[in-house]
Amino acid sequence: MIRHSSFAVDPWAIRESSFCLDLLARSESVFSLANGHIGMRGNLDEGSPSALPGTYLSGFYDYHPLPNAEPAYGYPSTGQAIVNVPDAKLIRLLVDGEPFDLRTGTLQNHSRILDMRNGTLVRRLTWTSPGGSTVKLRSSRMVSLTQRSVAAIRYEVSIPRKARSDDHEVQSRDDAIRLVVQSELVADEQVPQRSTDDPRAATPQEARLVLESSYIEGFRMEMICRTASSALRVVSSVDHLLRHSRRTSGPSAASNAYRAEASIEEGRGHCTVTTALHPGESFVLTKLIAYDSSSDLSDLAVRDAVAAALASARDSGWDGLVGEQQAFLANFWARADVEVGGDPEIQQAVRFALFHVLQAAARAERNPIPAKGLTGTGYEGHVFWDMETFVLRVLTYLYPRAAADAIHWRHSTLPSARRQARELHLAGAAFPWRTINGEPSSGYWPASTAAMHINADIADALTRYVDATGDLELEQAAGVEILVETARLWSSLGYFDAGGSFHIDGVTGPDEYSALVDDNIFTNLMARQNLLSAAQAARRHPSEAERLAVTSEEVSAWEVKAHSIYVPYDDILAIHAQDRSFTSHEHWDFEATDASEYPLLLHRPYMELYRKQVVKQADLVLAMFLQGGALYEGLTPEDSISQKERDFAYYEALTVRDSSLSACIQAIVAAEVGQMDLAYDYVREAALLDLDDLECNTSDGLHIASLAGTWLSLVAGLGGMRASDGQISFSPRLPTGIASLAFRVTYQGRLVIVSITPDNASYSLLGDEPLTITHHGTGFKLSAGSTITMAIPHMAAGPRPSQPAGREPEAARLPGKGRSGGRATGTDVTQRKNKDTDKDKRTA
Amino acid sequence: MIRHSSFAVDPWAIRESSFCLDLLARSESVFSLANGHIGMRGNLDEGSPSALPGTYLSGFYDYHPLPNAEPAYGYPSTGQAIVNVPDAKLIRLLVDGEPFDLRTGTLQNHSRILDMRNGTLVRRLTWTSPGGSTVKLRSSRMVSLTQRSVAAIRYEVSIPRKARSDDHEVQSRDDAIRLVVQSELVADEQVPQRSTDDPRAATPQEARLVLESSYIEGFRMEMICRTASSALRVVSSVDHLLRHSRRTSGPSAASNAYRAEASIEEGRGHCTVTTALHPGESFVLTKLIAYDSSSDLSDLAVRDAVAAALASARDSGWDGLVGEQQAFLANFWARADVEVGGDPEIQQAVRFALFHVLQAAARAERNPIPAKGLTGTGYEGHVFWDMETFVLRVLTYLYPRAAADAIHWRHSTLPSARRQARELHLAGAAFPWRTINGEPSSGYWPASTAAMHINADIADALTRYVDATGDLELEQAAGVEILVETARLWSSLGYFDAGGSFHIDGVTGPDEYSALVDDNIFTNLMARQNLLSAAQAARRHPSEAERLAVTSEEVSAWEVKAHSIYVPYDDILAIHAQDRSFTSHEHWDFEATDASEYPLLLHRPYMELYRKQVVKQADLVLAMFLQGGALYEGLTPEDSISQKERDFAYYEALTVRDSSLSACIQAIVAAEVGQMDLAYDYVREAALLDLDDLECNTSDGLHIASLAGTWLSLVAGLGGMRASDGQISFSPRLPTGIASLAFRVTYQGRLVIVSITPDNASYSLLGDEPLTITHHGTGFKLSAGSTITMAIPHMAAGPRPSQPAGREPEAARLPGKGRSGGRATGTDVTQRKNKDTDKDKRTA
Repeated sequence: MIRHSSFAVDPWAIRESSFCLDLLARSESVFSLANGHIGMRGNLDEGSPSALPGTYLSGFYDYHPLPNAEPAYGYPSTGQAIVNVPDAKLIRLLVDGEPFDLRTGTLQNHSRILDMRNGTLVRRLTWTSPGGSTVKLRSSRMVSLTQRSVAAIRYEVSIPRKARSDDHEVQSRDDAIRLVVQSELVADEQVPQRSTDDPRAATPQEARLVLESSYIEGFRMEMICRTASSALRVVSSVDHLLRHSRRTSGPSAASNAYRAEASIEEGRGHCTVTTALHPGESFVLTKLIAYDSSSDLSDLAVRDAVAAALASARDSGWDGLVGEQQAFLANFWARADVEVGGDPEIQQAVRFALFHVLQAAARAERNPIPAKGLTGTGYEGHVFWDMETFVLRVLTYLYPRAAADAIHWRHSTLPSARRQARELHLAGAAFPWRTINGEPSSGYWPASTAAMHINADIADALTRYVDATGDLELEQAAGVEILVETARLWSSLGYFDAGGSFHIDGVTGPDEYSALVDDNIFTNLMARQNLLSAAQAARRHPSEAERLAVTSEEVSAWEVKAHSIYVPYDDILAIHAQDRSFTSHEHWDFEATDASEYPLLLHRPYMELYRKQVVKQADLVLAMFLQGGALYEGLTPEDSISQKERDFAYYEALTVRDSSLSACIQAIVAAEVGQMDLAYDYVREAALLDLDDLECNTSDGLHIASLAGTWLSLVAGLGGMRASDGQISFSPRLPTGIASLAFRVTYQGRLVIVSITPDNASYSLLGDEPLTITHHGTGFKLSAGSTITMAIPHMAAGPRPSQPAGREPEAARLPGKGRSGGRATGTDVTQRKNKDTDKDKRTA
Repeated sequence: MIRHSSFAVDPWAIRESSFCLDLLARSESVFSLANGHIGMRGNLDEGSPSALPGTYLSGFYDYHPLPNAEPAYGYPSTGQAIVNVPDAKLIRLLVDGEPFDLRTGTLQNHSRILDMRNGTLVRRLTWTSPGGSTVKLRSSRMVSLTQRSVAAIRYEVSIPRKARSDDHEVQSRDDAIRLVVQSELVADEQVPQRSTDDPRAATPQEARLVLESSYIEGFRMEMICRTASSALRVVSSVDHLLRHSRRTSGPSAASNAYRAEASIEEGRGHCTVTTALHPGESFVLTKLIAYDSSSDLSDLAVRDAVAAALASARDSGWDGLVGEQQAFLANFWARADVEVGGDPEIQQAVRFALFHVLQAAARAERNPIPAKGLTGTGYEGHVFWDMETFVLRVLTYLYPRAAADAIHWRHSTLPSARRQARELHLAGAAFPWRTINGEPSSGYWPASTAAMHINADIADALTRYVDATGDLELEQAAGVEILVETARLWSSLGYFDAGGSFHIDGVTGPDEYSALVDDNIFTNLMARQNLLSAAQAARRHPSEAERLAVTSEEVSAWEVKAHSIYVPYDDILAIHAQDRSFTSHEHWDFEATDASEYPLLLHRPYMELYRKQVVKQADLVLAMFLQGGALYEGLTPEDSISQKERDFAYYEALTVRDSSLSACIQAIVAAEVGQMDLAYDYVREAALLDLDDLECNTSDGLHIASLAGTWLSLVAGLGGMRASDGQISFSPRLPTGIASLAFRVTYQGRLVIVSITPDNASYSLLGDEPLTITHHGTGFKLSAGSTITMAIPHMAAGPRPSQPAGREPEAARLPGKGRSGGRATGTDVTQRKNKDTDKDKRTA
């Protein structure tokens, strides 16, 4: 099923069947390969044309000054930004003396396939040079999920049977085509400096790597660079395996078929192969690549590590590396796959989402997982609350080892977080809104420092991970300390009023179109859970608690504060209030807001956004998902559902989704209140965000949290999965657009497979022990190896809640899109470029 | 009465009797001379040592980039900053080949006197060079209040009878001392770049003037420069009159007595005089200076204007200029003087205050009056709401011509203000929080753009001016448009709630330790008045209203909104609330706040300041002064006074006065509620702020608004003056520290002289028409030329309200200061340098 779209719909691959220069920036992001440690954008082998050349290492950044027109107490003076490391992807080709470039000559065909089972990006093309020489190129690229420091490229040029146009044949007696293959390693790659007022794009980086030294030995090249300010070192190394097809009589014949030499100087290394191919012949260059970095400039052991990684890769060879990659992914999909019946686009999109979430996290190993993964420089490579709230929420159930790594990374930043709390005159630890190395890197405090909920989000991810995995070792090693220090933060941030309610004032919740509000409901409920989790963990780990000087009085105080937390409610509207003042504010005039004015943050002043009722992204609705238990505690089931319906409908009418973190959450809550078609529309919007570039900024990198949200919208949304305190429950229900849905989650060491049809849900369990599962409120014990099928109860939903004028879900908004329509084309994208509805300012 | 202080107490002068290098920066500000057009800091003639060399022209600025770590919609990208124009003050002296420098040789004596009746700064000194040659120097400096573009210096060197130390006499046969006097005009003066995190100091300026051309003719030098970015041109010119005392036989003898030559190159002009003086002889150099600027680079008429100004100054000569100056000031003091009995410090301080307010404004003529006048680079030379709320409130009653000029200047910036309103998606005009040319120049929007009250402050100053002067011509030419456009702003900014109350959300009031609040009470009441004034003015000037497309429906809508304005009140505390949430917030823990942590803005994050009850400066208390009528409308006199007492006491306990705009207002309201001793303490704090450098930043320039506040604290405070709607009233009452107080105000063309003793107040009237005056609520008609004496009723005040721990008024806080103590000495200042309690962040 191929449609008029840049990417064909395919269950296991992303296919691009023609080359479109307009879409290059987007495809570079979509075709990124990464393993959580190394990330390579899907740049063309030959380096140009390119939109944003990019190779990144997790946690590898440089400092830059953070200027402030008006300095004030506590503003960070330096920020961190991800750095483009030496580019090892480059392989240039000269065909009969003419450089291969897609913009010249004739491109007979060009396709790229991101294969999500092989973990490779394969490019195939046939090109005729301006002089009339035709070559076929097949390049395959991979970033190894099994060998953390390794990437590899297999670059094969071959000559078709009829490789010369007629007039050439006249001029040339020899039918061989002369080729030069130049494989490069380039340290000071020119990256376009984009001048932009969009705060979500990266700050223009003037930072360049400083070349320390470079080495060459045979076809192996090594380059050692360090950052200018942050004192990090990166070692990049490449080696080359060369093979000519004319290998008829041993190695000497082959080596006569080409000449190769390597050189390196001033940050540019070249391995240059000169050869000639007759029709039917081919030449293969296999490039093995290794990267590693170190924060200890006095230690050159990292050189040895890179050399060893390269040796290991050489030992595996291309086929070995691909074989490992396939096995790794087969194992992953066996525990993580989602099968969607009836909607091939969603089927493809959810695998694409999981594949990139895995790529962002798999081998990060105590480095942060940035908002854009390692797919671009958007948000300067910073990590935000997305990691804990969206990405770890997926990894915890599908690939918990990576979740544990990320938690350990957060834990390692506690010293910075403690310093920040001191700076704010608060107790405990205050984690930064955006960072790479744990230090704050924000230029606008009302949407960063004030967004204190990130601390509870971190605590929540930890609690959820421990609940899902039973990993008490991690809880003891990292968890207690995180929980205690964040509980201390909340304890010192809030205060009791005369009536004994505990308030948290002057903070910013997830909705960044309100700021510095009192009693943000999401923040309060998350803080409540944080305080309670800390109390429980301190009791569970008394020696850790003692080491942290936690007293039983302190624990009791946390519990009192948690149970006294204020939950704002508007009695007149009979809805929960996003904060103490929110529902008293003027309503935004959506009718008077033109479609071109979205995202509002680029067209309206904060002063207008903050003082009116307009919601950038799920905030109270996110609390409904994450804190539904606390929010609706004590209500009868009937009262609870009608309260939820009122709450959801009120905020639906105000939420413009100028953040990519919103649609998936709205999908989940829409499903919870039985609005299945609305849920489906939001699932589609979340799922197609990057594939269809709905916000026109996929070029800066993929929206990793929204990709994670795609899975959440299906599993927590349509599947209705909730898990906490050792209990896992599902309330599955399908929209008309989806015929069947099957997914797997690992909970407490057991793999649960859930298969949903419109009428029934089947639950299967792999593992040794039985597990109690709740289906639509009914608990049952599922034995290992068995399957139980339960009927899905009917739910009469109320009227479909409405959205602000013009801000209906993407599927409902654009006729011809969504269920029945095609994907955005190049032309569409160009026309919609100024719309630029991005995820999230989080101008920290 | 001379005390251990840098400045002696003197009723009509500021005297410094010795030179203290530590206090140089402060004395440069205190000894500034200005006429509202030209400002010259009190730099030493010889240029060094200096703290901040400065010569400024009103409205003369350059642009500089305003960097933002995170750009956002509507942030200004360029700011404006006052520029140091070519320095014409410099006169260097060589004595027998050695440069005169206070830091070398022996300073026998050194005094400076700022004479507030002559309008001159006179410096006298006797100095013995390291080589043993003694000279006497007397320099007098003036910036003409009558000839707007003119300043002048009379520089006299003389030789005392015994001018040589003994060993010199051995070496030298001639007893003449060789002198070189170098008078300079310097375009690219080195100004120290101070790196500071204090947002209140100027942004370091990298801008330099660009020299266009320079000319010389005889001893007249002219320099034409322009700014690098803002396309403003300044023409500076100096001329020299030279006179040797050995003028016994006609001009030729005198010209033989010295040689003079002038040269100019590369932005430095010199007039160099070589002479020799015998004991008893003297040499006088009179330097005439003229400056003007133009914003039209194609127009060189400004050169002619400067040449003409210099010709006129030459015609007047030094004595003529001084004579005009004296006459101008005699006339000013006749209408403006305040006599304080029993407190010579306050007597001196209030004249110092009025003198500098006059200097900041007298000849500004449609240029802004900056927060620091023309006395320094603090706040980058920007004008804030201070101008209207504090400075014009004084000028209106003492020197209304300057108030009219300032209003015309604001009116001239309406095009920028309209653009800003459009940018904010509001109607009408939104004046900038800080500016020089009318464009916003703020780097932190929550304390600038959001401080919308400035618009009502501007409207209030206009309404007050028209009320006091009856100047309907100005109202028609400028006033209606300002009122209508600001009323439109409020009308679009606010909204009606379901109950019909009109709210203004998300703004920042005068108290900058709260921000983005809903229904700031000061803002709401000022907006109310603004709407009502606009309605009245539109009715009074129907043709103007028609030109502005004001309909009667629009006027009615303004009135409905004004009458529906919400006034927050806390029923439980029975006090007015500073805003809708203020009284619900946590109280600041003053006991846990060390004295070294003030001003809080330099030691605590906004996030902490904003969410707690702590008040930087009078806000609700300012509303009590400016909007007392509306605030307490409808209450019985008894209820009104007890409500005022409760309101005042509540906010007294929270107000830290980290702004210099607070003490004077607290003095006024303290007096209104009968707290006379507290009022007196605040009067003293306001009065001595710059003379005693209480906030340790007088070096950046004088606090012009606080100086204006000194007068307000006496006249509106102790005198209890209020005036509006054609009514003027007084409620005089003296604290024990002041034996008598007399002041004068001009109201509706009549000069009212009020003389207060502890028991009585006498009212005299100069003018043609009688005037009805209210004394403590009793109205009486005062005839021209007559005096009526009224008894002052006794008022039983409640207990003295308390202030935050350690934040009592300066007089009460520091034993040995205030009433019974001396002024700060050089040593004190050094010790207190880090305290730095400044007026106002207004980080616009």
